[in-house]
Amino acid sequence: MKKEFIQDLRAGESVEEIFVLAEKNLAQKRNGEKYLTITLSDRTGRIRGVVWDDVDRIASTTSTGEFVRVNGAVAEYKGALQLVVRDMAVSSPEAVDPADFVPATNRDVDKMFARLVEITSNMVNTHLKRLFELFWADDLFAQAFKTAPAAKKMHHAYLGGLLEHTLSMTVLADRIVPHYSGIDRDILIAGVILHDIGKVREFVYDTKIDYSDEGRLVSHIVIAVQILEEKLRLIEDFPRQQAVLLKHMIISHHGAREFGSPEPPKTIEAVLLHYIDEIDARVNGIRDFMAAEDTNEPWTSYHRLLERHFFRGRSGLPGQG
Amino acid sequence: MKKEFIQDLRAGESVEEIFVLAEKNLAQKRNGEKYLTITLSDRTGRIRGVVWDDVDRIASTTSTGEFVRVNGAVAEYKGALQLVVRDMAVSSPEAVDPADFVPATNRDVDKMFARLVEITSNMVNTHLKRLFELFWADDLFAQAFKTAPAAKKMHHAYLGGLLEHTLSMTVLADRIVPHYSGIDRDILIAGVILHDIGKVREFVYDTKIDYSDEGRLVSHIVIAVQILEEKLRLIEDFPRQQAVLLKHMIISHHGAREFGSPEPPKTIEAVLLHYIDEIDARVNGIRDFMAAEDTNEPWTSYHRLLERHFFRGRSGLPGQG
Amino acid sequence: MKKEFIQDLRAGESVEEIFVLAEKNLAQKRNGEKYLTITLSDRTGRIRGVVWDDVDRIASTTSTGEFVRVNGAVAEYKGALQLVVRDMAVSSPEAVDPADFVPATNRDVDKMFARLVEITSNMVNTHLKRLFELFWADDLFAQAFKTAPAAKKMHHAYLGGLLEHTLSMTVLADRIVPHYSGIDRDILIAGVILHDIGKVREFVYDTKIDYSDEGRLVSHIVIAVQILEEKLRLIEDFPRQQAVLLKHMIISHHGAREFGSPEPPKTIEAVLLHYIDEIDARVNGIRDFMAAEDTNEPWTSYHRLLERHFFRGRSGLPGQG
Amino acid sequence: MKKEFIQDLRAGESVEEIFVLAEKNLAQKRNGEKYLTITLSDRTGRIRGVVWDDVDRIASTTSTGEFVRVNGAVAEYKGALQLVVRDMAVSSPEAVDPADFVPATNRDVDKMFARLVEITSNMVNTHLKRLFELFWADDLFAQAFKTAPAAKKMHHAYLGGLLEHTLSMTVLADRIVPHYSGIDRDILIAGVILHDIGKVREFVYDTKIDYSDEGRLVSHIVIAVQILEEKLRLIEDFPRQQAVLLKHMIISHHGAREFGSPEPPKTIEAVLLHYIDEIDARVNGIRDFMAAEDTNEPWTSYHRLLERHFFRGRSGLPGQG
Amino acid sequence: MKKEFIQDLRAGESVEEIFVLAEKNLAQKRNGEKYLTITLSDRTGRIRGVVWDDVDRIASTTSTGEFVRVNGAVAEYKGALQLVVRDMAVSSPEAVDPADFVPATNRDVDKMFARLVEITSNMVNTHLKRLFELFWADDLFAQAFKTAPAAKKMHHAYLGGLLEHTLSMTVLADRIVPHYSGIDRDILIAGVILHDIGKVREFVYDTKIDYSDEGRLVSHIVIAVQILEEKLRLIEDFPRQQAVLLKHMIISHHGAREFGSPEPPKTIEAVLLHYIDEIDARVNGIRDFMAAEDTNEPWTSYHRLLERHFFRGRSGLPGQG
Amino acid sequence: MKKEFIQDLRAGESVEEIFVLAEKNLAQKRNGEKYLTITLSDRTGRIRGVVWDDVDRIASTTSTGEFVRVNGAVAEYKGALQLVVRDMAVSSPEAVDPADFVPATNRDVDKMFARLVEITSNMVNTHLKRLFELFWADDLFAQAFKTAPAAKKMHHAYLGGLLEHTLSMTVLADRIVPHYSGIDRDILIAGVILHDIGKVREFVYDTKIDYSDEGRLVSHIVIAVQILEEKLRLIEDFPRQQAVLLKHMIISHHGAREFGSPEPPKTIEAVLLHYIDEIDARVNGIRDFMAAEDTNEPWTSYHRLLERHFFRGRSGLPGQG
Repeated sequence: MKKEFIQDLRAGESVEEIFVLAEKNLAQKRNGEKYLTITLSDRTGRIRGVVWDDVDRIASTTSTGEFVRVNGAVAEYKGALQLVVRDMAVSSPEAVDPADFVPATNRDVDKMFARLVEITSNMVNTHLKRLFELFWADDLFAQAFKTAPAAKKMHHAYLGGLLEHTLSMTVLADRIVPHYSGIDRDILIAGVILHDIGKVREFVYDTKIDYSDEGRLVSHIVIAVQILEEKLRLIEDFPRQQAVLLKHMIISHHGAREFGSPEPPKTIEAVLLHYIDEIDARVNGIRDFMAAEDTNEPWTSYHRLLERHFFRGRSGLPGQG
Repeated sequence: MKKEFIQDLRAGESVEEIFVLAEKNLAQKRNGEKYLTITLSDRTGRIRGVVWDDVDRIASTTSTGEFVRVNGAVAEYKGALQLVVRDMAVSSPEAVDPADFVPATNRDVDKMFARLVEITSNMVNTHLKRLFELFWADDLFAQAFKTAPAAKKMHHAYLGGLLEHTLSMTVLADRIVPHYSGIDRDILIAGVILHDIGKVREFVYDTKIDYSDEGRLVSHIVIAVQILEEKLRLIEDFPRQQAVLLKHMIISHHGAREFGSPEPPKTIEAVLLHYIDEIDARVNGIRDFMAAEDTNEPWTSYHRLLERHFFRGRSGLPGQG
Repeated sequence: MKKEFIQDLRAGESVEEIFVLAEKNLAQKRNGEKYLTITLSDRTGRIRGVVWDDVDRIASTTSTGEFVRVNGAVAEYKGALQLVVRDMAVSSPEAVDPADFVPATNRDVDKMFARLVEITSNMVNTHLKRLFELFWADDLFAQAFKTAPAAKKMHHAYLGGLLEHTLSMTVLADRIVPHYSGIDRDILIAGVILHDIGKVREFVYDTKIDYSDEGRLVSHIVIAVQILEEKLRLIEDFPRQQAVLLKHMIISHHGAREFGSPEPPKTIEAVLLHYIDEIDARVNGIRDFMAAEDTNEPWTSYHRLLERHFFRGRSGLPGQG
Repeated sequence: MKKEFIQDLRAGESVEEIFVLAEKNLAQKRNGEKYLTITLSDRTGRIRGVVWDDVDRIASTTSTGEFVRVNGAVAEYKGALQLVVRDMAVSSPEAVDPADFVPATNRDVDKMFARLVEITSNMVNTHLKRLFELFWADDLFAQAFKTAPAAKKMHHAYLGGLLEHTLSMTVLADRIVPHYSGIDRDILIAGVILHDIGKVREFVYDTKIDYSDEGRLVSHIVIAVQILEEKLRLIEDFPRQQAVLLKHMIISHHGAREFGSPEPPKTIEAVLLHYIDEIDARVNGIRDFMAAEDTNEPWTSYHRLLERHFFRGRSGLPGQG
Repeated sequence: MKKEFIQDLRAGESVEEIFVLAEKNLAQKRNGEKYLTITLSDRTGRIRGVVWDDVDRIASTTSTGEFVRVNGAVAEYKGALQLVVRDMAVSSPEAVDPADFVPATNRDVDKMFARLVEITSNMVNTHLKRLFELFWADDLFAQAFKTAPAAKKMHHAYLGGLLEHTLSMTVLADRIVPHYSGIDRDILIAGVILHDIGKVREFVYDTKIDYSDEGRLVSHIVIAVQILEEKLRLIEDFPRQQAVLLKHMIISHHGAREFGSPEPPKTIEAVLLHYIDEIDARVNGIRDFMAAEDTNEPWTSYHRLLERHFFRGRSGLPGQG
Repeated sequence: MKKEFIQDLRAGESVEEIFVLAEKNLAQKRNGEKYLTITLSDRTGRIRGVVWDDVDRIASTTSTGEFVRVNGAVAEYKGALQLVVRDMAVSSPEAVDPADFVPATNRDVDKMFARLVEITSNMVNTHLKRLFELFWADDLFAQAFKTAPAAKKMHHAYLGGLLEHTLSMTVLADRIVPHYSGIDRDILIAGVILHDIGKVREFVYDTKIDYSDEGRLVSHIVIAVQILEEKLRLIEDFPRQQAVLLKHMIISHHGAREFGSPEPPKTIEAVLLHYIDEIDARVNGIRDFMAAEDTNEPWTSYHRLLERHFFRGRSGLPGQG
């Protein structure tokens, strides 16, 4: 268990701790001596480091992407902190808690999961209720579902993010359902819970969040349909039309072909799922973007994907607060 | 007050009633005799008609777009009903209730309005509360706001549609606000109520719903800002930043420049407003589209604007209902 | 077995034959008498018809989309042929050969299928060879694969079109493979054969070619992955990476997200598959479009989807032929 | 009043002058000593600087965005000039002429303004003539109109740029009007003068040109309509249709929704206004882009927004000049 | 020489005149008798006709697209005029003036041409001056340049339209040139005159304006470069850079690749040429569109290509005129 | 003839060799001494260098873009090789083989050319056969055609690349032609060979591959038509329709207007040409992209233009190879 995290390091401290070796470059001084510049990471951030001694041995026994135990001291260089490394050696993955190295939700994962289980146990539609019993009883799936992130970058980009995003959408859906008459509540809730389950295989997240081969080649939308199909196969009398409608909600939830949905939403419930996903992803994503920078600035920097600056407001002005 | 509506006409009946003269064409038989083919409308639909006698007088004393009193009989021709007109004369607009001729909401307009008034009277933000007091106290505005449609075609395309759409969004917003911490509830609600007020001048809707010159030339987005500005001017100390944020919500509510918003949403509240508008417009619009055709068909016809067929479901199949 | 087809009907003939009742409208003459206008279809085209006698009984006992036995005479009306129907009654589906009513390939389906079987039996990759043995041994699949069309409109839009298109692409792929070194031939051929198998469930084609609910809601791309997965499940040691690559070829074969592929092609083989599909679909589609009109005209009419006229050439001119 | 400008600094000179402190970073040498790297700007450009002494005091008493009086010497470092700063202290904004720090037009602002006033005083349309009398008599507006830039980057991006662009377009419009019969000259000229007036509030330009909150949240198009409405309100009998047409010209002048116009131009005059704006903005923008680089090169660098290189020509070649 | 034109025909008149046979359909009455419905055209419009007698002979000796001499009488049918044809026979093309059948400019072609010749004879650039001397001395080219239309539909879609459009742009260019310093006036004027010369081969316009094979296959942009190259070849010392710049102006004048220009404008002169073309095409096109319908209506119908209604204004209202 | 290439340099070696001087910057140390940092290139890559002595003379007698003879030693600096230059002087272009400095095909240019000549000599269409005899007999053209690259970056971006790409497409076309009946083989092959001939003038490639003025201003598509026209002019009886079809294939080969084709492909042969071009360009381009990086990585870096990562596969995994 890690005791020290990168965001808490202070100049002058000694460090004896495990990090992910994110980058490693062998360099050479004018006089021919070699040295190593590295980047270390954990879930709280990144720090650059330098190795002056025993360079050849350390360089040849460590690889980027591995957990390394580092012994060194924190210094300040060009206005930023830097770790002057005395020694660095590979640490076995078993010895570490991945959640220390990849950013994770700060909500209680088990409580969130329990709430989802409760919601599905109260479904009126017995086929759907049975379907989720099968899902929750599948330990491998449940574990992955509780750990996976919801994205690499845009929103809920941390361990547990998939569950957090899914639960938030489920609760939001339940707020919206009674507003319109005639919505099939259970199929909407089922669609919400299933829409992103493909992400349990779309990402790898042992030392950092990245796409898996399957994620890049097949996409979480198509993976999700396969995961669902595996469970449907176990229910003898699952109504064929409902099965197709569930798959439709999964594959259409991006809202349009150009965003990766092979078909656009064609039922009211699929349309609602798409907007609930948009709302939850946007609110979380924009807030994280606003919080990642100096929050005293009234405007964020330019958001490349959404193509705009966001306005935090000017708190000094009348009419704010 | 009309007693008979087009949707209730039956072959064989005599008719003595007021309609809108929607179309009028003078034609000629082989033998040189003139006759008049016309289309009549009221809020329940359209019917074609024909005038065989006294053609010149009737043709020269009536114009399309006017209310006309028609005396005739309902016949069937080529599988459709047709009105054989004995006489037709202009009727003064004062004598008629426009709601008989343009489709209107079937909800209680005054109750809906009262609910909106109540919601704004409970606002915590005193400036916004004051702002709406001014709006509701402006009889001319209130009357128009209660009568205007929300669109010519897409959704809530009937008298009272603007109020119905606005109230539905307001209530929906109040369901969503508590789901996320830190939303400025009053500014969101204010944005929701104001976002479409430009439509009171964007449309004309005396005999049918159509765009006004100002609507086509300036757009309801820019009209709304002017209507808001007129009221803001009356409040001495309205905070400048709040005024700008309100205008921002109005002008950004279409979500992107290509849909007519000069700027995209740049605050969380503006982003939420956009999605709440989308949800309410889509749910209402798709349902009206589904209901406008044979509801026993599992699929609707092709929706040109949304570029897809919608699925009503196959009720005979297992897994439905 | 039908003996007479619509394209061969001549004015003056008597007709006693089965057709699909494509459209049916009840109309009324000035004098109040009812009559029925209908449209009949078979695989060679459509003809309009009219029923003057016994209208009520015929109207109430037949429905559009059914097979009907028609007794009548061919007449000419406003420059086109018209069937004057004496009697019309429902015919049971068992009594008819669907291929008479839906256009079908004029190639030998069994020979085409045998050629595909032979090609896959010669594969070097034993896993892929085994995979196709399972597919061909599945009679239900094989039958559907031999019957399905490749599209509703654009190209190979006739029964057997899927097989014809698939075989043509397979042979074309085998011509292209040796041109570039290092192509994985077996995985490309496998991708070609599998890319459109979802169409066996995307279409219904009993009385005319149309989309199935599943086709419209889930798309043939996602259906195909499920069909493949069912077979892969039966092979114990199928290499995981190859399975993912096969699915990738299926889901990426439209070339870009905006055309319904959740991911674009990311391997050389997937890129080739996309272009081979494009070539075969375009050549077949453009030729059918050219042949469907007066082939003496140098230019076709405007092709809405491809947004251009096509040039057949001016055969009378020097430099042609 | 500044005597020395950045573009005139030479290595070896001593400097005692006021600049804008554009950037400021605190850094640290290996030996732990702190130093300050800064960037200074005035209307002629930017220069990097370094502070070796008294770092803490200087760092804590100056902020980016402020005017600072700098005492130092110009040196050369890595092929570029650098200011070695001995002392730096905040200078009060009153003591400086903003035009020294933000690039400004090199044309005579008062003469340009006088010319516009003359043009409007000769209008035949008395309502429009009266409208402009009100604008010119509004000192606050007139001052802002004479100072504002026309853009942050693309064209006329300097103080006085709005006036220069507006006058140039007005004169150009007067050249084009007589070419086509039936143009309403006064309404076109009025539209030209008003189309960008929103920029007086869209930008802030005290120490550098940047967007204001209102500019980013509401856009100059909507601001302009409000400024116009304020004046229209003062004219009792201003014809309603003309008012709407003027607003239409303002809101449609970007030519299409995707460029920020809520409606596209729908009158001949609005269409002309759009093109006149395009011509003047492009000619000025491309020329500035061509002039900003080595003008001996036949090709400019890549223009990101216009997505092309521009050709200056090869003057050494025959066929040039 | 035609004496009567379609727009002047009145019910009751006898007609003996030449028209283009635009459409021809053989039809049949209930009783089996054949008749012919036709459409006739000349430059002023179209009229439908019917042939009751001698149908077989007339049908077999005339073809659509030919000039026909028609003997008949004007009647009124279903509210529109109709020509009851007694006899109709092919007329030799030599006997007719094409300008009677295809709409043509109502300006004096020779005067317009003379004005262009004068403008080019005053060029300072001797190479360009020489170039145009060669063009004008080429009778075949000059004749085609004076006759060709500028488009099939959008603007200047009549004989002489190319010359009218070219001259208008030339004069407009001369008005704009002095407004900006440093424009190469002669190369701009040369570009203006040459930009659409490919249209002399892009269209055929003997009995109606349509695309030629070469026009559809190669486009007027590429044809124009070839026509220019033919003349450049005759001038021994024409500067290479100027030749390339002239071709650049031709190929870039549509402004962007998506509108058919292989490269976008990359010189100030090419940019100006593009806008001058846009202005002249739009003003002419919108005006023709406005004039083609009831000019008392304040709004035009929907313009499909420009995607909007245009506003003619409400002349009864204050603030108009 | 160069003996040493950049990719073979090793730390510690002495170098006496000719390179292209790709970049040159004059810098200055803290102590005021000047030095020169440079970049040298040949066809195998680039290396940075530094000049400490005799800086003024060397800086003033050499220019970027020139061939320079360099005397120095290879050192290692910050992990990369660096050339410490003792002397550097301009070398005359005549003394060098351009193929040493610009990357070139590693296939035998004369053999490739001979194969093309043979293919065209076997054409059945005598006019096309004659056309290519003229092309091959034109030494200037043949030399340029054998030397030109096919692109600056995307694919076949090396000397001889145009010929290699053209021959590959020709052979591929011959593989595809027999697959479809009714293809005009000779016109397709002719189109393939001619489609990119404009590239002989679109690029300059003496010291590096870059666009020519004509290439950027007129595009290879329009240049190609002119080159073809020059030869067509020499054949008296070349059929007009064939000439237009050949030009059509050239100008439409990019497939759509937005990619620079003034018209899209409108014949089967033009459609095929487009896809054959796409296949050959993509396969070559993707492979070069895959090979340019560490080929042990399963994924390439992000391909900006094609907007995706490409998958090389994981060779260690089961299911690969």
